[in-house]
Amino acid sequence: MQDLIEHFENYGPKTLPFDQWLADVLEVPLATVQPFLGKIQYRKVEKNEFLIMPGTVCPYTYYVERGVLRMYTIDGSGKEHVIQFAPEGWYITDRKSTYLDEPSSYFIQAIEDCDLALIPKHFLQDISKKYPQLLEKNTFILNRYIMLLQHRVTLLLSATAEERYLDFLSTYKDFIHRVPLYMLASYLGITPESLSRVRNELAKG
Amino acid sequence: MQDLIEHFENYGPKTLPFDQWLADVLEVPLATVQPFLGKIQYRKVEKNEFLIMPGTVCPYTYYVERGVLRMYTIDGSGKEHVIQFAPEGWYITDRKSTYLDEPSSYFIQAIEDCDLALIPKHFLQDISKKYPQLLEKNTFILNRYIMLLQHRVTLLLSATAEERYLDFLSTYKDFIHRVPLYMLASYLGITPESLSRVRNELAKG
Repeated sequence: MQDLIEHFENYGPKTLPFDQWLADVLEVPLATVQPFLGKIQYRKVEKNEFLIMPGTVCPYTYYVERGVLRMYTIDGSGKEHVIQFAPEGWYITDRKSTYLDEPSSYFIQAIEDCDLALIPKHFLQDISKKYPQLLEKNTFILNRYIMLLQHRVTLLLSATAEERYLDFLSTYKDFIHRVPLYMLASYLGITPESLSRVRNELAKG
Repeated sequence: MQDLIEHFENYGPKTLPFDQWLADVLEVPLATVQPFLGKIQYRKVEKNEFLIMPGTVCPYTYYVERGVLRMYTIDGSGKEHVIQFAPEGWYITDRKSTYLDEPSSYFIQAIEDCDLALIPKHFLQDISKKYPQLLEKNTFILNRYIMLLQHRVTLLLSATAEERYLDFLSTYKDFIHRVPLYMLASYLGITPESLSRVRNELAKG
């Protein structure tokens, strides 16, 4: 249980090559990981480059070794809505598109130059056939992510602009300096003007 | 993969005793489940009864055999916000409280008379020691729930009142008739007035 608590308290970006992430976070011995790494592609993308766009199937889960990705959607009135950021040590995907082979309704875009590992659909499942213990650790990680999403739903339904901003600060720490403010406002579900007001008020103390 | 698609397309309530849920949904043979069932408590609660309140630790995951539970929070101005409904065949918990032994910030309340199974913290983990295949199926279920939560975040950020209502209708089907409209509006993150307007407009065609 302690590891789950630590996962919660260290949710900032963490630079970790993908094979090391498998070893350190999923706790799969490097020797076990090795034969599977041939299925992983590595890719560099430049700031602003797109990995997926609406209407295309998202074939991979993208693990970030360096840089930041964001996933967003555009509503009927042309407004962007940021669903997720993924800095170092995180992964991002439109799971519905990846798992069900359906066209995505999201954009995934680099907001910094990135080094990525491209994880194909059944990668973890394939390793788990050789090393079932992986699933226990992965269950922790999925539960942790559910907690974060449930917390985000709660904030979107019930929290003020200031509460949302402070929550982001405390959870994601210095990462905040790497995200343009208009994207942060979009992620928080508030207007850029509200975000500026909150930041000015907090700066005044 | 087919089973994941079916899970997606059959997301309405489904009456299933807890041991049968373990056998049918998690696909654990009933003979394997049997020795663990002694750890499960069964409880009847009446409409409006509370299972947890803010400030108390949520010791169980509540599986609904009959009835509907809701989880909600109250904001600083006294307004209720429904985070989740759980009809038959679903489970509900404040995971953060249950897994980390922290006081919850939510209410969990019966909105119909309910028959519940109370699942203690390590229950699935304990079965998985005897039957590791459970974890693979559970990974599907957790991923499916992540997709639904991500979809909900997207709707809360970007969808109109009408889009939110129609999405709920298509996902949860007849369940809509069992939820008071003010709670549904709260779940959708819209005002009861918006919900009435949308329903009236749709009724007119």
